[in-house]
Amino acid sequence: MKRIGVFTSGGDSPGMNACIRAVVRAAVHQGVEVYGITRGYRGMIKGEITRLESNSVSNTIQKGGTMLRSARSKEFMTKEGRREAYAQLKKFGIEGLVAIGGDGTFTGANIFCEEFGIPIIGAPGTIDNDLYGTDYTIGYDTAVNTALDAIDKIRDTADSHDRVFFIEVMGRDSGYIAIPCAIGGGAEIVMIPEAETSIQTVVDTLRTGWDRSKTSFIVIVAEGDEAGNATEVASEVQKALPYMDARVTILGHVQRGGSPTAADRLLASRLGIACVEGLLEGRKNVMAGIVDSKLVYTPFIETITKQKIINPHFIQMVNILSV
Amino acid sequence: MKRIGVFTSGGDSPGMNACIRAVVRAAVHQGVEVYGITRGYRGMIKGEITRLESNSVSNTIQKGGTMLRSARSKEFMTKEGRREAYAQLKKFGIEGLVAIGGDGTFTGANIFCEEFGIPIIGAPGTIDNDLYGTDYTIGYDTAVNTALDAIDKIRDTADSHDRVFFIEVMGRDSGYIAIPCAIGGGAEIVMIPEAETSIQTVVDTLRTGWDRSKTSFIVIVAEGDEAGNATEVASEVQKALPYMDARVTILGHVQRGGSPTAADRLLASRLGIACVEGLLEGRKNVMAGIVDSKLVYTPFIETITKQKIINPHFIQMVNILSV
Amino acid sequence: MKRIGVFTSGGDSPGMNACIRAVVRAAVHQGVEVYGITRGYRGMIKGEITRLESNSVSNTIQKGGTMLRSARSKEFMTKEGRREAYAQLKKFGIEGLVAIGGDGTFTGANIFCEEFGIPIIGAPGTIDNDLYGTDYTIGYDTAVNTALDAIDKIRDTADSHDRVFFIEVMGRDSGYIAIPCAIGGGAEIVMIPEAETSIQTVVDTLRTGWDRSKTSFIVIVAEGDEAGNATEVASEVQKALPYMDARVTILGHVQRGGSPTAADRLLASRLGIACVEGLLEGRKNVMAGIVDSKLVYTPFIETITKQKIINPHFIQMVNILSV
Amino acid sequence: MKRIGVFTSGGDSPGMNACIRAVVRAAVHQGVEVYGITRGYRGMIKGEITRLESNSVSNTIQKGGTMLRSARSKEFMTKEGRREAYAQLKKFGIEGLVAIGGDGTFTGANIFCEEFGIPIIGAPGTIDNDLYGTDYTIGYDTAVNTALDAIDKIRDTADSHDRVFFIEVMGRDSGYIAIPCAIGGGAEIVMIPEAETSIQTVVDTLRTGWDRSKTSFIVIVAEGDEAGNATEVASEVQKALPYMDARVTILGHVQRGGSPTAADRLLASRLGIACVEGLLEGRKNVMAGIVDSKLVYTPFIETITKQKIINPHFIQMVNILSV
Repeated sequence: MKRIGVFTSGGDSPGMNACIRAVVRAAVHQGVEVYGITRGYRGMIKGEITRLESNSVSNTIQKGGTMLRSARSKEFMTKEGRREAYAQLKKFGIEGLVAIGGDGTFTGANIFCEEFGIPIIGAPGTIDNDLYGTDYTIGYDTAVNTALDAIDKIRDTADSHDRVFFIEVMGRDSGYIAIPCAIGGGAEIVMIPEAETSIQTVVDTLRTGWDRSKTSFIVIVAEGDEAGNATEVASEVQKALPYMDARVTILGHVQRGGSPTAADRLLASRLGIACVEGLLEGRKNVMAGIVDSKLVYTPFIETITKQKIINPHFIQMVNILSV
Repeated sequence: MKRIGVFTSGGDSPGMNACIRAVVRAAVHQGVEVYGITRGYRGMIKGEITRLESNSVSNTIQKGGTMLRSARSKEFMTKEGRREAYAQLKKFGIEGLVAIGGDGTFTGANIFCEEFGIPIIGAPGTIDNDLYGTDYTIGYDTAVNTALDAIDKIRDTADSHDRVFFIEVMGRDSGYIAIPCAIGGGAEIVMIPEAETSIQTVVDTLRTGWDRSKTSFIVIVAEGDEAGNATEVASEVQKALPYMDARVTILGHVQRGGSPTAADRLLASRLGIACVEGLLEGRKNVMAGIVDSKLVYTPFIETITKQKIINPHFIQMVNILSV
Repeated sequence: MKRIGVFTSGGDSPGMNACIRAVVRAAVHQGVEVYGITRGYRGMIKGEITRLESNSVSNTIQKGGTMLRSARSKEFMTKEGRREAYAQLKKFGIEGLVAIGGDGTFTGANIFCEEFGIPIIGAPGTIDNDLYGTDYTIGYDTAVNTALDAIDKIRDTADSHDRVFFIEVMGRDSGYIAIPCAIGGGAEIVMIPEAETSIQTVVDTLRTGWDRSKTSFIVIVAEGDEAGNATEVASEVQKALPYMDARVTILGHVQRGGSPTAADRLLASRLGIACVEGLLEGRKNVMAGIVDSKLVYTPFIETITKQKIINPHFIQMVNILSV
Repeated sequence: MKRIGVFTSGGDSPGMNACIRAVVRAAVHQGVEVYGITRGYRGMIKGEITRLESNSVSNTIQKGGTMLRSARSKEFMTKEGRREAYAQLKKFGIEGLVAIGGDGTFTGANIFCEEFGIPIIGAPGTIDNDLYGTDYTIGYDTAVNTALDAIDKIRDTADSHDRVFFIEVMGRDSGYIAIPCAIGGGAEIVMIPEAETSIQTVVDTLRTGWDRSKTSFIVIVAEGDEAGNATEVASEVQKALPYMDARVTILGHVQRGGSPTAADRLLASRLGIACVEGLLEGRKNVMAGIVDSKLVYTPFIETITKQKIINPHFIQMVNILSV
């Protein structure tokens, strides 16, 4: 393999640049040429492809976002679109791809690889951490720390005013961000999609605390919780406990940005190198990940279909620690 | 004067603890006893008053929120309530007060001082910076930096995805927070209560940029802008520019918390000392502030009724810098 | 077991408070009384022991340092001293101990436990991460992120001025802090005790880069590197490359402080709970740790005598990534 | 004036990029072409000059360091060198210059302007804040906050271990950085070049505190203090108080880097615009600055020769607040 391409796709996450950098440097180290594809599959179809040298990625490891940008592509969902994408890659002589993204990215990569036989290796770049095949995804640690930093600030004001704060963090399908935010933020309650928490339980817990003369509370709500989002939950709770002063904060897109943490830079660098080495070893249609400190390659199809299970002990910890 | 009280009231702001600390230490330095009143006027009425020594405020200068807590008090708005508050102060032998808060706090202080003759000096503790009689209020610099830090993170993701972000910052009546956020955050547009900005102007500016192939934009909206809040503005703009990807983030209560910046610690310390010295010099019914680097005492009545005007040049700067 | 004690000993690390908090809350949750022992073994001997309730540890999870303080104790190294310490514990009715610290702490705990039969479980609290029996120690992730943040700042000025910066990070016996700092900080060279790096190699690498017109470099030096500390290394290199502008920064004690990261709060909380549960299950003379995401208890004697080996792949990564 | 140049010179400071950006955008706004000169006077002599467009400075406002780099130039100190520099400017058709830097930069600019008649306006870019003609220099607020953040971390460990920390901050000739660090960091003592503090006074203050059972202390030492640097002071104090555990931390180059604070971005933006507007109004040989919130232009010769005096009240505040 003499020439590879790299792109980012789906929601951006901190550490994507560190991963791109590692892909470029590892390729240069191995004597392989690298091309950057802009805006994911959309740019692939349009031929937005440029050569990346070692110094193209200088001074990028600490930057949030993705220098290759990201976008959704409806065209790539059609056979037609993928054929055009493949034609562009052929034109540039690209023989293998590194795809940095989440399950949407890998679903596309899987089909593309099967249809046209081009080897693709994925790196898990998403703040959600809900990908099977790796203990942590690139950007997750940063997102959690960003959220926690905001929660620390909110607790200052919660404590000063005797308030109940309902803080919504990202997590449409999972509580991976909510759980460490709740434990690390000293929250009284956490609400995540993986565990049922009724409004009644929330009300009871708050009332019990209040009766023990506790006056400020933090409830962390994953945006995809089955009981509703933070605004909805707060509204229900406020009705049941009218004497409490309930407030809502939705952390939102702030969680996607920022300079990556040490752990994310390390993970991104390690996986970027692993993607290049994997391609050169002849692997394809797999995602590189770290499980129990060891590098593993998991077939795309498994990363998409298998579910990563959150440690139930962590949910219990929130209860123990808010005693 | 042998014994004074100190309290915080209204919305909390970073640096309130630094100010309390300075009041305590300055009083101790002058041989005056200090009592902390918890939860503002509400605690005053209830007699929630305790002695503060020099080491009561050790290791507090860097902490967000207020160790004396804050609350609203409907009772204090009645003559009855104020009489009870005064009785409590008498009981503790408190001869003067330092009130840390905003215009609501000083409105109450002004009446209280006039009715019962107890000398009160105020320190401007609010993130809003809209108090006449001081160039900056305690907490303002921190709030702006916190907001800016969030905006920097959002720009990472805005740039990665070609998006228009409408970011709502605090400011019900003024653009004091919005302006430095817009200039410092490299925003294309700022919308503040003090200046009329029509939705049409926003649409035109974005369309002009888009036509010049600019694809990501940041619009800073002060929550009290006359054109609506960020959600409303974004919705209008999205209708007019359906091909753009508009997103909204409301920074919310995060802006109130956090460890105070150097400028806020310095300001809070300086004004805390000035409040104590002012009381000992026989001043009353005034707010201590810094104007053009010099300490000034402004009558409460002026701080409440006079309006601080934002430098119009700053609004123009946003246009020049987003060329 | 009805009553336990908890203390911190050795160098402090961020997350120690989160661990103390978890010990207290887990004990309360289990109906066990907890006593805090101030200043480690020194305070134990002096009987500086006080009851901790659930709310004694409110609002501490985010704080650096240790609320129980730490100190060295020469007296505890004598049989006499340990007998006195045991007598104090008996006086307070303490039947088991949680010791938060590093290998010095556990060496003492091991002897104490063997001599007097009091069950002790340890939590690994040290920024150095060089303890066998856990993948990460409490405080390590924070220290690395603090160092990395400083390195990011130094790179700003290194790039602006065409300079070679030699940055010394903590690590008397290991490169655990240096390695992620080098990878995450985009350093060209890393020097750690575990791997021999001659001054000549450093000189050659810098000269090669310089000849390829690279003009700013970062070299991370673990304080215990066999080639010397950062000041010594820089001085040698400057002699060999007089045309380069070499500068030294020693990060020092800053690395020990600061609010713990999410990972450290989570780890500290998990291990604090595990220490209490371990004591109640009848374990003793072991350290609680997390290996491959699973909780394990390792005998003190192994944590002291066995060596944790740094992944050699990480050293190689620095070379690949600085291509 | 149809074409201007901009450069940075001397030590870099956070906000220099924000200032370059403002110069470029203000020039574009006025229909003036801008050229960036790399590495200050050195690059001017070598003709390292390139066109800057509006988008050349996109996404730079938040970055530390200087994108135009900085360097010292011995050649520019000779008439010969300056003649060559002028020839290069003529070649590019540059009719005016914006110089961002400190007193060394303005000394050079002053001579250059007088010899060759080319109009130059300066923006104060230095972390030291010791320039006459402006209340604050670009980078000062960031440097102080960076130092303060480090001091907060060190206090965590000082408090945990009963230690006396001597922390050296930048300031060869002035205490402008040391003073807010001492007040904001809750230090017991500050040592600055502008005020004489004998070792004996330091020893007495520490001993008095110790005798009142205070066990941890922070002493802030400006690097240029007449009593010696932090290492020297600590060594003397340790001799006199052998029972205390004295430690030294030198903050060093970390203080020069980092993303600029809101205040620095605002100041840099305002002054960058003012430099361009000043040139177009026919001003020359002056530095733009903000005094008492108002824009002023001060002749280079005054900025170099006149001394800015630190408010003596601030020194006294350290004593009051550490009561």
